[in-house]
Amino acid sequence: MNAEDLIADRTPLPEAITGRLREQLVFLAEVDKLKTVLRQSPLAAAERRENDAEHSWHLALMVPLLAEHSDEPIDVGRTIELVVLHDLVEIYAGDTPLYDDAGRVDQQQREEAAADRLFGLLPADQRDRFRARWDEFESRGTPEARFAKAVDRVQPLLLNWLARGGTWRTPGVTAETVRARKAVIGEASAPLWDAARALIDEGERRGWVES
Amino acid sequence: MNAEDLIADRTPLPEAITGRLREQLVFLAEVDKLKTVLRQSPLAAAERRENDAEHSWHLALMVPLLAEHSDEPIDVGRTIELVVLHDLVEIYAGDTPLYDDAGRVDQQQREEAAADRLFGLLPADQRDRFRARWDEFESRGTPEARFAKAVDRVQPLLLNWLARGGTWRTPGVTAETVRARKAVIGEASAPLWDAARALIDEGERRGWVES
Repeated sequence: MNAEDLIADRTPLPEAITGRLREQLVFLAEVDKLKTVLRQSPLAAAERRENDAEHSWHLALMVPLLAEHSDEPIDVGRTIELVVLHDLVEIYAGDTPLYDDAGRVDQQQREEAAADRLFGLLPADQRDRFRARWDEFESRGTPEARFAKAVDRVQPLLLNWLARGGTWRTPGVTAETVRARKAVIGEASAPLWDAARALIDEGERRGWVES
Repeated sequence: MNAEDLIADRTPLPEAITGRLREQLVFLAEVDKLKTVLRQSPLAAAERRENDAEHSWHLALMVPLLAEHSDEPIDVGRTIELVVLHDLVEIYAGDTPLYDDAGRVDQQQREEAAADRLFGLLPADQRDRFRARWDEFESRGTPEARFAKAVDRVQPLLLNWLARGGTWRTPGVTAETVRARKAVIGEASAPLWDAARALIDEGERRGWVES
């Protein structure tokens, strides 16, 4: 089948399921594809790369666990919603590695088109709500979005540490590159940024990332 | 290595990371194991079985998407927290398939021991809070827990439908067995229970589950 086909078109839902719930279940079937979008990060618990659904779940758990370290008060529930949604656009736009400068050139355009298409499967009010949440995450205009972005940057750092290098070993990447890409953590949480720098500094000392 | 060893013990965190945050990061490293716990359900988007982290993420997305169908008002953020946490005990207790009557005999005992061990990695206040959330999910004493349990039962139903059978084809399982195991959906949402029965009824008509 064509990768662009909807999953629910292969086995259409029973006709008895109608209206908003039918649209919502078609969307839920379609987002199963997030489980097939591979990231660069290696798992700590197995010898394979992480996928976007696993990553999003890990972030969702980080929010209630680490919210106490946010510099500003945050609504935990709303922040979890942001991280659960934040990578959905990669179903059509693919994962753009943090250290892939070429891929990052047209990333925004690809992801906007993906958001139009994916969220367009939903009832209009939910399409607008989910889209607004995704925009909020991307623009980091709220304490919740800043904290969501911070945990999105801390999580692969922890996986790289546990893998003793991981994507830090990408050719051309140095400890300075990593610090620059991760500085956004400091917009949300001083303690998390301190911990992130401790991981990078010690990784550099051990030769897991180039100086 | 022994499967019982902590992931963080293989590559201990830098000494500069101390206190609560250190315990929290050790916990976050350990829960990476959830990505390796396989469930019975087949993915819709790929030819393999789903793992617990992917499943938990899918539920976390279902909550804001389907909350409008809850028979009682629910706090969406708190309900997402419940589903994000609900399968963590399977890191040590393993997945117990819904149609595995033998495995279900000592399931509660195994999962209680796993909860003690896993949540015990956390600072005491968070240990108690996460444990309380898990107990809440299991006992279905709140509208949030009832809705969380309902989406936990709807999601594999949708995957089985999309797979044209999936675990419905387990030897000894009939449409009646499936209806009995899924009836808990009706405690939280009449529209979701209607949709669930439509999937089972039509699956039975098509021979994807035995009569």
